[in-house]
Amino acid sequence: MIQGRVTGRIWSSKHIETLPGGALLEVALEGGGSLIALDPLGCAEGESVLVTQGSVAAGYFTGIKAPIDALIIGSIDET
Amino acid sequence: MIQGRVTGRIWSSKHIETLPGGALLEVALEGGGSLIALDPLGCAEGESVLVTQGSVAAGYFTGIKAPIDALIIGSIDET
Amino acid sequence: MIQGRVTGRIWSSKHIETLPGGALLEVALEGGGSLIALDPLGCAEGESVLVTQGSVAAGYFTGIKAPIDALIIGSIDET
Amino acid sequence: MIQGRVTGRIWSSKHIETLPGGALLEVALEGGGSLIALDPLGCAEGESVLVTQGSVAAGYFTGIKAPIDALIIGSIDET
Amino acid sequence: MIQGRVTGRIWSSKHIETLPGGALLEVALEGGGSLIALDPLGCAEGESVLVTQGSVAAGYFTGIKAPIDALIIGSIDET
Repeated sequence: MIQGRVTGRIWSSKHIETLPGGALLEVALEGGGSLIALDPLGCAEGESVLVTQGSVAAGYFTGIKAPIDALIIGSIDET
Repeated sequence: MIQGRVTGRIWSSKHIETLPGGALLEVALEGGGSLIALDPLGCAEGESVLVTQGSVAAGYFTGIKAPIDALIIGSIDET
Repeated sequence: MIQGRVTGRIWSSKHIETLPGGALLEVALEGGGSLIALDPLGCAEGESVLVTQGSVAAGYFTGIKAPIDALIIGSIDET
Repeated sequence: MIQGRVTGRIWSSKHIETLPGGALLEVALEGGGSLIALDPLGCAEGESVLVTQGSVAAGYFTGIKAPIDALIIGSIDET
Repeated sequence: MIQGRVTGRIWSSKHIETLPGGALLEVALEGGGSLIALDPLGCAEGESVLVTQGSVAAGYFTGIKAPIDALIIGSIDET
């Protein structure tokens, strides 16, 4: 998995039907670069998150073949 | 997923039989680089798009084992 | 697989339900960069480890669709 | 998918049994780098090709678990 | 697939139970970087090899969910 920080959100009104509900968050990655991850946890901008990638991200969704290759699986505790 | 912008289209007259119909679009990626993604949405040149990669891209197609590792899953709203 | 060295650990109190138990370790990779891998072996900070990535990492877990794309599969012998 | 150009061919006399027949072509990628892709289409050196990667490349082969992670799926029309 | 050259071997006495037998070889990749690949062919140090990555590497093993994401599938003929 990779660590990142939520920097924003995108919206897509025109999308394929199998896109699951949930926020599409922009995540700046540790080490550089960024991606868009689906967020089932309700994370806020600035939150540090753990992202999983690839087919295991899609495996989170049941009863649908979700076209998701990046999923926020946790918020990282910061102390 | 990754964000990108449609910059062109390619054609392939000679291809394997399991290549699904649909436009093969050139997408310039945020952060650099580019790829070719299959577009089921009818996106136009210059449009900002959301691309999923890997086996989940192929999972969009039913009744066929599509050899597709990059799929446009949405157009990103721009305001 | 890739080689790396354990440099720390993260905690995630708020996470999706299918995240398996086990330590989430920060691993600095040979060649640069880092990732977070689930550790079923109880590795210590500073230990040299072998990490597998992608859907095969999730395949380690049975009876659950684990959202894990990086798994420590061995500790590398150092002499 | 990624675009590339065929630059050569390799041979492997000693290989695992599940390697399918077909040419193993060297492909120089747009944007830099290169890979070896299996070619079911009979492409020639210098030809511009479309390559798919990952498990979907292996899915092209039926009745065998082919250890193929890169497949030429089309020749790109050049005008 | 990618080309590389065997540069060494690692041992892992402490590993998960599903790690298959076979040598874990260090492979320096064409274009830079290195990885650890499982070798079912008995390749020697200095040998030029063809490596497949991802879940198709694990598919080589039957009757076990092998946590292998890199497999040597052939030795490249050198003349």
